[in-house]
Amino acid sequence: MPADSPSHINPSDLAAYRHRLRHSVSHVMASAVVELFPEAKLAIGPPTEDGFYYDFLVSRPFSPEDLQAIEERMRRDIAVSIPFQRKELSRVEAEGQFAAQPFKLELIAGIPADEPISTYRHGIFEDLCEGPHVESTADIKAFKLLSVAGAYWRGDEKRPMLQRIYGTAFESQDALDEHLHRLEEAQRRDHRVLGRELGLFFFDPLAPASPFFMPKGALVYNLLVEYMRSLYKRYGYQEVITPQIFGTDLWKRSGHYDNYIDNMYLINAEEREYGVKPMNCPAHCLMYMNQRHSYRELPIRYADFGRLHRFERSGVTHGLTRVRSFSQDDAHIFCRMEQVNQEIADVLAMTRESFSACGLGEPRFTLSMRPEKRLGTDEMWDRAEAALRDALLASGYSFTEVPGEGAFYGPKIDMFAKDAIGREWQLSTIQLDINLPERFDLEYVAEDGSFQRPVIVHRAVLGSIERFLGVLIEHHAGAFPVWLAPVQAVVIPIADRHIEYASQVAARLESEGVRVSMDATNERMNAKVRNAQLQKIPYMLIVGDREAANSSVSVRLRSGENPGSMPLDKAVARIKEAIASRS
Amino acid sequence: MPADSPSHINPSDLAAYRHRLRHSVSHVMASAVVELFPEAKLAIGPPTEDGFYYDFLVSRPFSPEDLQAIEERMRRDIAVSIPFQRKELSRVEAEGQFAAQPFKLELIAGIPADEPISTYRHGIFEDLCEGPHVESTADIKAFKLLSVAGAYWRGDEKRPMLQRIYGTAFESQDALDEHLHRLEEAQRRDHRVLGRELGLFFFDPLAPASPFFMPKGALVYNLLVEYMRSLYKRYGYQEVITPQIFGTDLWKRSGHYDNYIDNMYLINAEEREYGVKPMNCPAHCLMYMNQRHSYRELPIRYADFGRLHRFERSGVTHGLTRVRSFSQDDAHIFCRMEQVNQEIADVLAMTRESFSACGLGEPRFTLSMRPEKRLGTDEMWDRAEAALRDALLASGYSFTEVPGEGAFYGPKIDMFAKDAIGREWQLSTIQLDINLPERFDLEYVAEDGSFQRPVIVHRAVLGSIERFLGVLIEHHAGAFPVWLAPVQAVVIPIADRHIEYASQVAARLESEGVRVSMDATNERMNAKVRNAQLQKIPYMLIVGDREAANSSVSVRLRSGENPGSMPLDKAVARIKEAIASRS
Repeated sequence: MPADSPSHINPSDLAAYRHRLRHSVSHVMASAVVELFPEAKLAIGPPTEDGFYYDFLVSRPFSPEDLQAIEERMRRDIAVSIPFQRKELSRVEAEGQFAAQPFKLELIAGIPADEPISTYRHGIFEDLCEGPHVESTADIKAFKLLSVAGAYWRGDEKRPMLQRIYGTAFESQDALDEHLHRLEEAQRRDHRVLGRELGLFFFDPLAPASPFFMPKGALVYNLLVEYMRSLYKRYGYQEVITPQIFGTDLWKRSGHYDNYIDNMYLINAEEREYGVKPMNCPAHCLMYMNQRHSYRELPIRYADFGRLHRFERSGVTHGLTRVRSFSQDDAHIFCRMEQVNQEIADVLAMTRESFSACGLGEPRFTLSMRPEKRLGTDEMWDRAEAALRDALLASGYSFTEVPGEGAFYGPKIDMFAKDAIGREWQLSTIQLDINLPERFDLEYVAEDGSFQRPVIVHRAVLGSIERFLGVLIEHHAGAFPVWLAPVQAVVIPIADRHIEYASQVAARLESEGVRVSMDATNERMNAKVRNAQLQKIPYMLIVGDREAANSSVSVRLRSGENPGSMPLDKAVARIKEAIASRS
Repeated sequence: MPADSPSHINPSDLAAYRHRLRHSVSHVMASAVVELFPEAKLAIGPPTEDGFYYDFLVSRPFSPEDLQAIEERMRRDIAVSIPFQRKELSRVEAEGQFAAQPFKLELIAGIPADEPISTYRHGIFEDLCEGPHVESTADIKAFKLLSVAGAYWRGDEKRPMLQRIYGTAFESQDALDEHLHRLEEAQRRDHRVLGRELGLFFFDPLAPASPFFMPKGALVYNLLVEYMRSLYKRYGYQEVITPQIFGTDLWKRSGHYDNYIDNMYLINAEEREYGVKPMNCPAHCLMYMNQRHSYRELPIRYADFGRLHRFERSGVTHGLTRVRSFSQDDAHIFCRMEQVNQEIADVLAMTRESFSACGLGEPRFTLSMRPEKRLGTDEMWDRAEAALRDALLASGYSFTEVPGEGAFYGPKIDMFAKDAIGREWQLSTIQLDINLPERFDLEYVAEDGSFQRPVIVHRAVLGSIERFLGVLIEHHAGAFPVWLAPVQAVVIPIADRHIEYASQVAARLESEGVRVSMDATNERMNAKVRNAQLQKIPYMLIVGDREAANSSVSVRLRSGENPGSMPLDKAVARIKEAIASRS
């Protein structure tokens, strides 16, 4: 696991400080709320990964104006330096102190008899709290209240609905500003919102966490698949098509029944239990087993875009990035251990090539090494880890070795892509597997005529295409690279009398293989340009009298750039060049 | 339903005669068996669609020699004219007559008390039988015993295993010969056998009736999909990608839950019932509903290659032609009733184009008209039927109108393709649907601003791609049209010293987009040619000293044709022309 990825951050000093700071700001906020809303009953107010919240029982939801007033009151409170002071109380004292706060009383009742009951006090506000806190309110340099939402007491819909105020705090105004900017950017790039605005996909409660790709979304999806196919041809992969539903005998043999059953969709038919496939590997083992193989044939690389289904609980699904139904650019490489190094090197080269084509930067890698509990001999692990390490070294990619984090069946490489606003996404893994070949008794005939066991490399470059697409949308804020844009150019006639020439321009582009549309609506030119920009169409070709007269177009880019008038031929060449170069 | 398709043949005089004839030959066979195997216990011996069989309990399976002996004895018996005579017996008489035949006694016990018990007798052989039969054995002009197989008494695996002899009989030797030839051809073309021999696909009991497409099979499969996509572009279809698993609320709304549930795979998860989709239509309705539509947008044509699952009982599945897991070149056209005619015309044009590209002849059509029980007004049906009829008339295709056979939700067109040995296959239907738009409350905004109901045209041109591929394999006996052949050309070096030039030839072809392989094995040239022919590779390019010296190749075709030596450039042009023209 990566040491510095957001979800696995090591508790560094900064993180611990922010935790204390946010906890303290939460108290300051509660104090302000109690001053402004004396009837408020206090629930809990913990720090979170990115900020803090506090839950209150109040007679009406907080308005934006309330938040502003609370924030002002807080600023006044922190203008002077008030220390945070810890106190320990007996149970009786605590119950007396919080007699008017039913939620606190419930919390006190839940504290085991042998544990201390502590409070933190700043000024006249004292809260039941384990701490720790910063020294004093003078430490609070930068904070902001963000939003309000309803939340049930203890998450139980049978208990009272409370009002939760979210906020955040940082050690400096710069850090806060940067965070707020990132929040805003993340919101602006939210692929779920852009997916709808750009007509790419939607969800329906009738198929939870299973995207519907509308024509433009399906187009981009298929372009990614076609692109991977073009690489497969070059890298010697063979595409196969396999079933989606298998008798559970298969899942027992593969080990999924013991280890993955909770994430599988099960079916009963004709007195037999079936499972919808969550992974392609067992099907590819069956395909490998269907024929005898000679060492000469290896490596055999089976690629499969088959739809996979994994039952994720409804609480954890999210847009395209965590779904129940998806396809991967999945492949399994059956090879000899001594071929692994070259295979990994090729996969890394494919990764570099495809990430670059999609406008993503250089990914970062981790190499997860042998865990305590593992299959196979130490010598096997030595060779397997060395093969992966050597390939990573040769690739020039930066990577970190993570001891103990490999799968029980082999070491693995995890791949992290950084998006435009600095967030890291794990997109795929490369796993070396010495377990499945055993379970399926896979063999090849070696040069000496003996039967030998191959190893399997599981690998996906883009990973889940759904997830990759979601990340790509956020990374580009919907403005796909030209080759991936659903509509690559829009022709905009300035007035109705230019529609004829505009149609000719569109027809020309279409005949050149450009995905083009024409905006012949009655709107004014500027509105048309704005619409095209909102739709993130790379090229706007505006045509009026002058353009019609001399076979030219006036080119604008979605970025706002304005290359201006140019001969149609030149514009066509420029667009085709952008498509062909995948730039 | 077609009047003359094999599976729905009208009981014409000939069919009734063959039925009687085969029943009589079955008796003659049983008589011969009893003569040769006096200990044999007789079970049943009915005529079937293509012949007859008779089940016997004997001490050992019949050998091919036994069959020959039985056939000889039968020929001797029919050399003289022996009449078939009907007799009615009382139950006591019957039980006495068949006292030594336990299966017959069991059959007698099963005859209701008020029904007559009849026998048919020819010569000294008398069998419990309802008839009817031909007049006498002299009527038997042509018969043949075909095979033996084990069969449980009454199909019950707990009852004795019997030996079933299959045979057939016709009114003339010519008709028999033709039938036997067709059987042989059908066997030679059996797509299940060819699928394995050509490395196209296989099945595994772990995923019953769900094909695994190996690299060559997946290649052909994807070529068909890509070809349909190229037509979609031209015919204005938009591809979409939809989920595969939906809450059963959807299937209740669509009507599948009431009418199709037995063929659906059901899943329970998080206290909710889900169904794996057997059809795409409801998903496309959800997609249509996801946005408001204006009359200007119609027709909207959603195409979907999504995997479908239909639970077919294990008894009825067959190779690729009846599977549980498949994809269709499926599409749903949402349009106004007055647009239906043009839409159907376009679908028919696509059909003509794609059938021709796949080397199939002109399909035949039936138009199924309004049934007794139906939705919608007579005026609606008048318009719908007229739209379909007019489109068929305009297409120039031959078609038959079948009264009463339409779906309750609209009239439909069924499409039948004739294969190389005269068998007809129903590949797809075009259905007009006025029901689903009601159920899903679909609307569009008409010119006058009012909300109107569209109709839906369900249509698939190839139908199930799995099934289409199976039919195509049988039609071409595995020798796909060049554009669909997994390997289009094989370069055959005569000796090792020609491998270098052969590699150059292969590289040249590959750079020209031809799927090419090289046979550099140690086998002799003739063996290599034979292998290529068995693999149905369209072009064999043989290269030896002369070819290497003057940049030529010696071309042979899989048909056995031998165009001989030609410059490499010419051969390349010829192959590329065959691919491009889809000939």
